[in-house]
Amino acid sequence: MSFSETIARKRDGGRLSRAEVAHFVSGAGTGDLPPEQLAAMLMAIFLVGMDKEESLALTEEMLHSGEMWNLRDEVPEAVDKHSTGGVGDTVSLVFAPLMAAVGVPAAMMAGRGLGHSQGTLDKLEAIPGFQVNWDRRGMLALLQSCGAAVVAQTDDIAPADRTLYSLRDITATVPSLPLIVGSIMSKKLALGAGTLILDVKCGSGAFRKTLPEALELAEALRSVARSAGVACEALITEMDQPLGPALGTACEVRQAVEIFEGRGSAPLREVSVRLAEEALVLRGRPRLEARAALEKALDDGSAGAAWEAFVRAHGGDPDPALLAEPRRILEIGAEISGVVAAMDGEALGRAAVEVGAGRRRMDEALDHGAGIEIAVRLGDRVEKGQALARVLVGEREIDRAAVVRKVSEALVVGDLPIEVPPLVYGTPEDLFGGTATAES
Amino acid sequence: MSFSETIARKRDGGRLSRAEVAHFVSGAGTGDLPPEQLAAMLMAIFLVGMDKEESLALTEEMLHSGEMWNLRDEVPEAVDKHSTGGVGDTVSLVFAPLMAAVGVPAAMMAGRGLGHSQGTLDKLEAIPGFQVNWDRRGMLALLQSCGAAVVAQTDDIAPADRTLYSLRDITATVPSLPLIVGSIMSKKLALGAGTLILDVKCGSGAFRKTLPEALELAEALRSVARSAGVACEALITEMDQPLGPALGTACEVRQAVEIFEGRGSAPLREVSVRLAEEALVLRGRPRLEARAALEKALDDGSAGAAWEAFVRAHGGDPDPALLAEPRRILEIGAEISGVVAAMDGEALGRAAVEVGAGRRRMDEALDHGAGIEIAVRLGDRVEKGQALARVLVGEREIDRAAVVRKVSEALVVGDLPIEVPPLVYGTPEDLFGGTATAES
Repeated sequence: MSFSETIARKRDGGRLSRAEVAHFVSGAGTGDLPPEQLAAMLMAIFLVGMDKEESLALTEEMLHSGEMWNLRDEVPEAVDKHSTGGVGDTVSLVFAPLMAAVGVPAAMMAGRGLGHSQGTLDKLEAIPGFQVNWDRRGMLALLQSCGAAVVAQTDDIAPADRTLYSLRDITATVPSLPLIVGSIMSKKLALGAGTLILDVKCGSGAFRKTLPEALELAEALRSVARSAGVACEALITEMDQPLGPALGTACEVRQAVEIFEGRGSAPLREVSVRLAEEALVLRGRPRLEARAALEKALDDGSAGAAWEAFVRAHGGDPDPALLAEPRRILEIGAEISGVVAAMDGEALGRAAVEVGAGRRRMDEALDHGAGIEIAVRLGDRVEKGQALARVLVGEREIDRAAVVRKVSEALVVGDLPIEVPPLVYGTPEDLFGGTATAES
Repeated sequence: MSFSETIARKRDGGRLSRAEVAHFVSGAGTGDLPPEQLAAMLMAIFLVGMDKEESLALTEEMLHSGEMWNLRDEVPEAVDKHSTGGVGDTVSLVFAPLMAAVGVPAAMMAGRGLGHSQGTLDKLEAIPGFQVNWDRRGMLALLQSCGAAVVAQTDDIAPADRTLYSLRDITATVPSLPLIVGSIMSKKLALGAGTLILDVKCGSGAFRKTLPEALELAEALRSVARSAGVACEALITEMDQPLGPALGTACEVRQAVEIFEGRGSAPLREVSVRLAEEALVLRGRPRLEARAALEKALDDGSAGAAWEAFVRAHGGDPDPALLAEPRRILEIGAEISGVVAAMDGEALGRAAVEVGAGRRRMDEALDHGAGIEIAVRLGDRVEKGQALARVLVGEREIDRAAVVRKVSEALVVGDLPIEVPPLVYGTPEDLFGGTATAES
């Protein structure tokens, strides 16, 4: 069958067979199919959708387009964590050493930030000497030495995803559930940890704005992971506001360190612990015991020790005094007294990019001293003139007035008390009984 | 606005502004937009659709991508005719001289056949010496000398359509109403005759299989033509079986000549006369008088004289004895007695291509002696062994058994009498009051 006939079948609402999905993905990976046919298929998938079986096939074929590290063959107990992308989300930096501190290896592949988000690799690279490029053998050595490894995704992992992702980017087909699932899960399965925790962000600062949307994504991702034999749980967490107060690179490292020092952002600590708790439960520990062990590791300094070991093993120097500092801090005060009613997380993320803490283009250098700090949480009562946020100005020349205006506009103070969203919504089963897409 | 945002708006069901349509079409014509973005937009248009205003904008922008002949400026009374594509459809060869015979110039641009259809240019080129490549001045001279001109579409006409059509072909986006309308009408408006008759084929052998589908296309095409100031009527005609008995090139010229000799296929004559009648009515003649004039021209030899003048003006020799003959004829008899219940026009067209009367690829040469002749019409009573069709074998080596089998399978003889479809369904107003898409 010609590929245009396959496009026509999807266009008309049909199911693609495993062989048809394989043709599509291998054609993308090898360049055997022209980009215009791939683009038409992407749009047809966007508008028509894919069922569970097609989505699994897509993920697996993307996985098989590249190298597979099969981590669970060597370290069967290792845990991977993935976040669908938030603002001020420093969880990975807390999670990996925390898991190591309670005796469970944590292994992740991470990416760089683009657009309104800051990437985990970018944050780690704010630490002097920290190396993110490791091969499989290097990652295994890291796990051996400190029980935690966060490495850059290599070009050999799921190369078909790179082709498809760059096509999706210019053809307006990024926000499609089966394409998102394929892109995320092919890379997770390529690393091949036996246990996977998904942090599905939900809210105005996430790309899934509503609970049903987040639930749908959580169930779709988890379903594919489980079908591939991975012990997987998904936790839906709130992203109506930045998780930690800091948005940037060095400032986010600093906010992770504060957690290991028993202080800092309570929401960041709570989400990190909840995700780690789910991981331990999947690894067979009783929930209450797991929770207690995690709290203890943070309180007694053992997680902090694991953080330092983690940084050193990756070649970095854990001394926080070496992190880049802002040259200047601009404070943004409340223009009226009232209640913090809403935050535009994407706008705050974009403002952080604008000051130099993120990239507008992939080849752009970062300013590690730059960032944004949010001084309030949703529902907080503020007085006129009270600090709402601080702009951390680094080395880069910026339009200060424009950034202050953008941050200010992204933080809405109102008259009335608001209903504060919960920090953690829970697993799909905790929500609506997990029924949103039980059959799809 | 970036073009991916424009794609996203159409994807999400939005309307494209005139400027957005212009960006799309000019990007296709100039190559400024990458084919993958064009392909994604084509699929979004396919699945989401376009309203009347967008469709008109698409047509006009495609029209303006190339040369415009503005024929009505020089020959305001000239009539153009377009068929949406049928099998055994020799109407153009009859229509043009017939119009000339009753004093109304007929001017058409035609294309070559590909796939299961035979093109008008291919048929005319079966006539020794017949030239189809004329520029605007050449066409005007033909109209001056014999009142009828059929010329090849030049590369300068609607070049954006060529890019988009070749993309549609490989991206499974050919059968989309606004894209079809844009493709057809941009070329008709580029020729620029003041009067246009549309022959919208409906049935198993057409790409619009049902009456509602054909009606939708007829109204969409006519609406765009009228919005562009063209006097236009659409006639929906039956294509559940080949119109003339012959499918091929020389054999279709022969069946046109038979009409001018007052014999031959009654359905071919009737459809040709009905279309010509609509053209005369649009040009202001009373219907009954128009009909009588056309019948008289066919009966008294004046249409035949116009045909000979038409062929000579184009450089051809009208002597039918010079047309290529088949080397051998394979007769296909009925396997059982019964009633001719169905014909698969597309399969018959493909069989004609296979024997050499059409192209599988654009660079393939034609075998003018080859073709298929259908000896029966739907509803005919046939006895076992009676000829259903004849395969005209030309110079090309063919798999005779395979062709005979395919033609045989495409002609279904059944037990029961069938309801024979009417030859001409009429204008949109004759059918359902023309309400199918009155608002879209």
